[in-house]
Amino acid sequence: MKAGVVDDNGQPLSAVSLPTEAYKGQEFGLERMCETIRLAIKKASVRATRIKAIGVATPGTMDIPGGIILDPPNLHPWQNVPVRQFIHDAFELPTAFQNDANAAALGEYWVGAGRDAHSMVLFTLGTGVGGGIVIGDTVLEGEHSHGAEVGHHRIEITHPRQCGCGRWGCLEAYASATAVVKRTLEVLEQERSRSSLHRVLKERGKITAKDVFTAAPKDAVAERIVEETAFYLAVGAVNMMHTIDPDMIVFGGGMIAAGKSLIERIRRHVKELAFPVPAAKTQIRYAVLGSNAGFIGAAACGRQLVKQK
Amino acid sequence: MKAGVVDDNGQPLSAVSLPTEAYKGQEFGLERMCETIRLAIKKASVRATRIKAIGVATPGTMDIPGGIILDPPNLHPWQNVPVRQFIHDAFELPTAFQNDANAAALGEYWVGAGRDAHSMVLFTLGTGVGGGIVIGDTVLEGEHSHGAEVGHHRIEITHPRQCGCGRWGCLEAYASATAVVKRTLEVLEQERSRSSLHRVLKERGKITAKDVFTAAPKDAVAERIVEETAFYLAVGAVNMMHTIDPDMIVFGGGMIAAGKSLIERIRRHVKELAFPVPAAKTQIRYAVLGSNAGFIGAAACGRQLVKQK
Repeated sequence: MKAGVVDDNGQPLSAVSLPTEAYKGQEFGLERMCETIRLAIKKASVRATRIKAIGVATPGTMDIPGGIILDPPNLHPWQNVPVRQFIHDAFELPTAFQNDANAAALGEYWVGAGRDAHSMVLFTLGTGVGGGIVIGDTVLEGEHSHGAEVGHHRIEITHPRQCGCGRWGCLEAYASATAVVKRTLEVLEQERSRSSLHRVLKERGKITAKDVFTAAPKDAVAERIVEETAFYLAVGAVNMMHTIDPDMIVFGGGMIAAGKSLIERIRRHVKELAFPVPAAKTQIRYAVLGSNAGFIGAAACGRQLVKQK
Repeated sequence: MKAGVVDDNGQPLSAVSLPTEAYKGQEFGLERMCETIRLAIKKASVRATRIKAIGVATPGTMDIPGGIILDPPNLHPWQNVPVRQFIHDAFELPTAFQNDANAAALGEYWVGAGRDAHSMVLFTLGTGVGGGIVIGDTVLEGEHSHGAEVGHHRIEITHPRQCGCGRWGCLEAYASATAVVKRTLEVLEQERSRSSLHRVLKERGKITAKDVFTAAPKDAVAERIVEETAFYLAVGAVNMMHTIDPDMIVFGGGMIAAGKSLIERIRRHVKELAFPVPAAKTQIRYAVLGSNAGFIGAAACGRQLVKQK
């Protein structure tokens, strides 16, 4: 878990991380959160009294207004964890609670790629595809804390791939880093084509999404996978453009290390797939805050609490 | 075009309609709008001074904040029509402008199926699939007046049907009344199966979506088409549930004459396709205002102008 002290301009004064060690249970996890926050305050060299609010953002199924993590697949065996109340009681400060992907979106919106946008949809491309939607300073949380599950809108019905979530045809099943690797292995298997990725696979026993993006300019298989990935991401972007119609679509997460070529391909597909007006006007960008986006956005949530008072 | 006088409780005091005759051009069209409004006022038997605001909702590509119809495919040869300004000048009243599907959504939200919801997504099922999204009294217009084009999010990538909009794989290409007829004709053609619809087709030279829904309980081809249509609509609903996560998904438009069987099938598919929490909590309903939803919602837009003052 990561924490930082963020000033009123959205600049981090510190950034620290400690291992979550989820298996040790939720009591340990909550104490670890407090420890991480204390460490961030210490590293920022600011007096504790200058901290006006706390924002906590976590993954997993949750009740955002209730401040509770419900049944997080990635934080086994945690269940019904009253995160906001616990942190509030530990620090006696106004405490906000948010989904981590939503927080990252708000971070990028506040001081990152979306800082000039009125509305923004973020896709976070990692082992899964997460996301967040911000419209005019407000995170679209949804009525049941399931807003902006943008990796789990369905883009395929006749021959759907199964998604990590158990459902079928989700964007994530096509465009996450995991999906990139899986699709590449399928092509290598089926086509037995000459590809530099065969060698990588043989040498290391596995390939990564990074290997595929690195090989792409000079390798037909990798090239095809990257092009298809850009198409899938463009379909996801266009679906959001035809639903939310934001100023900006932002792609973040580990996979954007793929660089300029990927975003340019996405932009090209978006121009072909979207209605003319949003195709011409919607900006398509990479995120700029990296892994700090989450705690900067969490801080923005905390800040909104204090500003509301 | 349809108009009505709507009171502060959202009840229509009149409802009139006149033919648009779009081919006569936009000057005629604007005058016809005024004529329709005047007729509605007359029929409502209220003094003109009691009308506090006007709301106009139209189809077509538009600039909602600008109050302008841009280049409407259904209103050829209109172009760049300053609707709001014209109506405002003619009646000298605060005048709101909105997309017709958005207005219908706001109507259902105000006094129809969604009157107890905090947020609602409407799918309008007719020759196309339109829609509107309302979150806490606010219509999600989008930054470029392209919010809630819910019929044009893509649900198929590998073998996409072409949509009336020219794009591929849009929900509308699967689940509009037009698509229902097209898919039925394909099955009748391919399978030469014994179906009562062959007879209908022979007798009348065509079939309608209504024929299919009527035949369904006793006809295997019709049954299959209805079931698939429900599945496609459920995919559309779930995509909105995983993006907007509203309290309620509402289906309106001519196709809901199909009745109880269709919505029950949609509900069943939604329960299978959505994440557990929204699957359990999101209400799936039919619209209740019929073709009055548009002008009731337009009135709500007008009313919001006056309330804002």
